[in-house]
Amino acid sequence: MNSTEGVFEKQSKVQLIIEVAQKRFGMYGVEKTSMQQIADDLKLSKASLYYYFPDKESLYKAVIEKEQDEFIKRLTEKVLSINEPDKLLREYVNARLSYFHSLLNLSRLRLEAYSNLKPVFKEAIIAFKEKEKEIVKKILDDGIKKGIFTLKDTDITASLFLDLLKGLRISVVNDKKTLFIEQEEYDKLLCDTVAFTDIFIKGITIK
Amino acid sequence: MNSTEGVFEKQSKVQLIIEVAQKRFGMYGVEKTSMQQIADDLKLSKASLYYYFPDKESLYKAVIEKEQDEFIKRLTEKVLSINEPDKLLREYVNARLSYFHSLLNLSRLRLEAYSNLKPVFKEAIIAFKEKEKEIVKKILDDGIKKGIFTLKDTDITASLFLDLLKGLRISVVNDKKTLFIEQEEYDKLLCDTVAFTDIFIKGITIK
Repeated sequence: MNSTEGVFEKQSKVQLIIEVAQKRFGMYGVEKTSMQQIADDLKLSKASLYYYFPDKESLYKAVIEKEQDEFIKRLTEKVLSINEPDKLLREYVNARLSYFHSLLNLSRLRLEAYSNLKPVFKEAIIAFKEKEKEIVKKILDDGIKKGIFTLKDTDITASLFLDLLKGLRISVVNDKKTLFIEQEEYDKLLCDTVAFTDIFIKGITIK
Repeated sequence: MNSTEGVFEKQSKVQLIIEVAQKRFGMYGVEKTSMQQIADDLKLSKASLYYYFPDKESLYKAVIEKEQDEFIKRLTEKVLSINEPDKLLREYVNARLSYFHSLLNLSRLRLEAYSNLKPVFKEAIIAFKEKEKEIVKKILDDGIKKGIFTLKDTDITASLFLDLLKGLRISVVNDKKTLFIEQEEYDKLLCDTVAFTDIFIKGITIK
């Protein structure tokens, strides 16, 4: 094996570890998952796992960053493909919700924020929120440029819109003991989110 | 002392206990408050306090009900005094926020809901939410009748509006460790709430 192959192999190993960890964190949450369990899932020794990730925190951080990157990438593709800002904002909301549904680590992270969250994860949440705000701000700016939307400050409004979406999700998820969202609850959340987005868009649209 | 005086005296004693308990629960939360502390505040023996309230739960429930009743009474007065539904909805939001600011037991109750909340308090929250929903629904119905608002279902929309307000409050309050809202955070919450209400009202108003 030459050194280039070694680098590739190491990279794909890292990717595999992150994917397996992602599934386990997603299923059981970070607190209830041990490095031993992830090593077992990978049929790897604990020592080998620690060679790639020195602790559970750094592995969890890698999982979160992977999820964030995928999400932002998917949304950015959407932003480039749809031309009407109002339609785009609706699409953004839908994509966001289904993404949170399928990849639960981020939403869980927010739930766990109420107990004891390490500063390193808080940074990841803040960084993600900033990236999301940029996307929404872009949609709102575009809507103003096209003479569709009317609002004072796109930065503040983007932030407010995201807080409201987050608030709706918390309203549904936090009233219950488990971290899993049942299909019925997800449907209610989807319904509420669509109704809210509709009113919000009407509220910023020039008629 | 005749029996009528006795009843009056007992009633005013109960009211005094509730008021004192309200202050202490409001300052330190229900979990960190003991019946002994409330008895001390009242310069009463613990036995006398237990004569009026058999346990901390029943006293806390009485405090919550007092706060709910005052809040609903105040809002109902507002609903009767203002004629324009849009102005009324704004007034309602302001009154609600300042009320939560001054009487924190209810908002705390919601925060404590994430840990171990007794069913008896959950009932109080649900009952309160229903009362609030009735007021908002009334405002929305009135707006439709007056040809100002346009929306499909006033019941669902009233519920959504309250969830969004709650979500905004949680966004601000839950990101922090302590239960106290600093003036700066309250100002941000007020600002966000006013901006949201503005967009929401525009979103349901016929132009």
